Amino acid sequence: MRLLIDMDEVMADAIYRFLEWYERDFGVRYTKDDLAGTKLSEIVPNDHKAIVKQYPHEKGFFKDLPLIENSQEVIEELNNKFDVYIVSAAMEFKYSLYEKFEWLDEHFPFIHWKRRVFCGDKSVTKGDVLIDDHDFNLSVFSGRSIMFTSPHNVHFTKYERLNNWIEARQMFDLL
Amino acid sequence: MRLLIDMDEVMADAIYRFLEWYERDFGVRYTKDDLAGTKLSEIVPNDHKAIVKQYPHEKGFFKDLPLIENSQEVIEELNNKFDVYIVSAAMEFKYSLYEKFEWLDEHFPFIHWKRRVFCGDKSVTKGDVLIDDHDFNLSVFSGRSIMFTSPHNVHFTKYERLNNWIEARQMFDLL
Repeated sequence: MRLLIDMDEVMADAIYRFLEWYERDFGVRYTKDDLAGTKLSEIVPNDHKAIVKQYPHEKGFFKDLPLIENSQEVIEELNNKFDVYIVSAAMEFKYSLYEKFEWLDEHFPFIHWKRRVFCGDKSVTKGDVLIDDHDFNLSVFSGRSIMFTSPHNVHFTKYERLNNWIEARQMFDLL
Repeated sequence: MRLLIDMDEVMADAIYRFLEWYERDFGVRYTKDDLAGTKLSEIVPNDHKAIVKQYPHEKGFFKDLPLIENSQEVIEELNNKFDVYIVSAAMEFKYSLYEKFEWLDEHFPFIHWKRRVFCGDKSVTKGDVLIDDHDFNLSVFSGRSIMFTSPHNVHFTKYERLNNWIEARQMFDLL
């Protein structure tokens, strides 16, 4: 079985960086609870929105991101059992390319470069299962689409859902 | 129709860089004719092989590569008619990621970031047609595989062949 796994909000905690940089720039620390069903650029004052949207286009945004809880150990277990590919829509952010590659080398060295994909539109990728936090990726995938829970997607009911990596052990019979 | 197009030796002349750097390091200028059915690392003296193989892993190798003849104008014509995706096995060379992205921005700005893919093993990509110079990419592709002629592949007879970009106008009814 070929299993495609998204990076941001599934393996890497990019929301952490949004909250961190916003506090750095504006002195206010939002929390993930503030982002239920939405995203940071939607809840900040209007004149901050463009600045927040620009963050992932800047150098350093994707560097040293914290791990999503239990992602390392469970994805290693999945990788031992299935053909795991990491598939990130990194092309939107050109400085992310090298930072994401280095991040995978550091935290997921067991994912060979042959199993890494940086793309735009994920409809060009092929596999049996996609685990992703975004409707716009899951909806164009031709296999089994599984939504990984993230603050912004908590109200979606359209997909099979994985709330955390511990649940994946049961879903994929790793126990 | 979704058409996937490889970068090195199909859009970008990476052999030029191999020959250029080899002359810089060893004072000998090989030509593309010397590479018929083979590649530079196979024909240089034994103690130069490892150095040549290391070239694409170095910063700058993929920067400012010359264009394969007529690639710009014909790929733009194809892009106007079909869903063109650029699919490069860039993951083998981590410094290539940013350099390839910038190169596309410079020479193929009409290819949106959503239509760019940097991968390892191309079996994870999906499309109707793949134009590529390597058997190891064409052989794992599930659609129509077309070999773009490059010195190293001239003896292959396994695939439909595109010898140059001018021929693509007839093959894809652009005339």
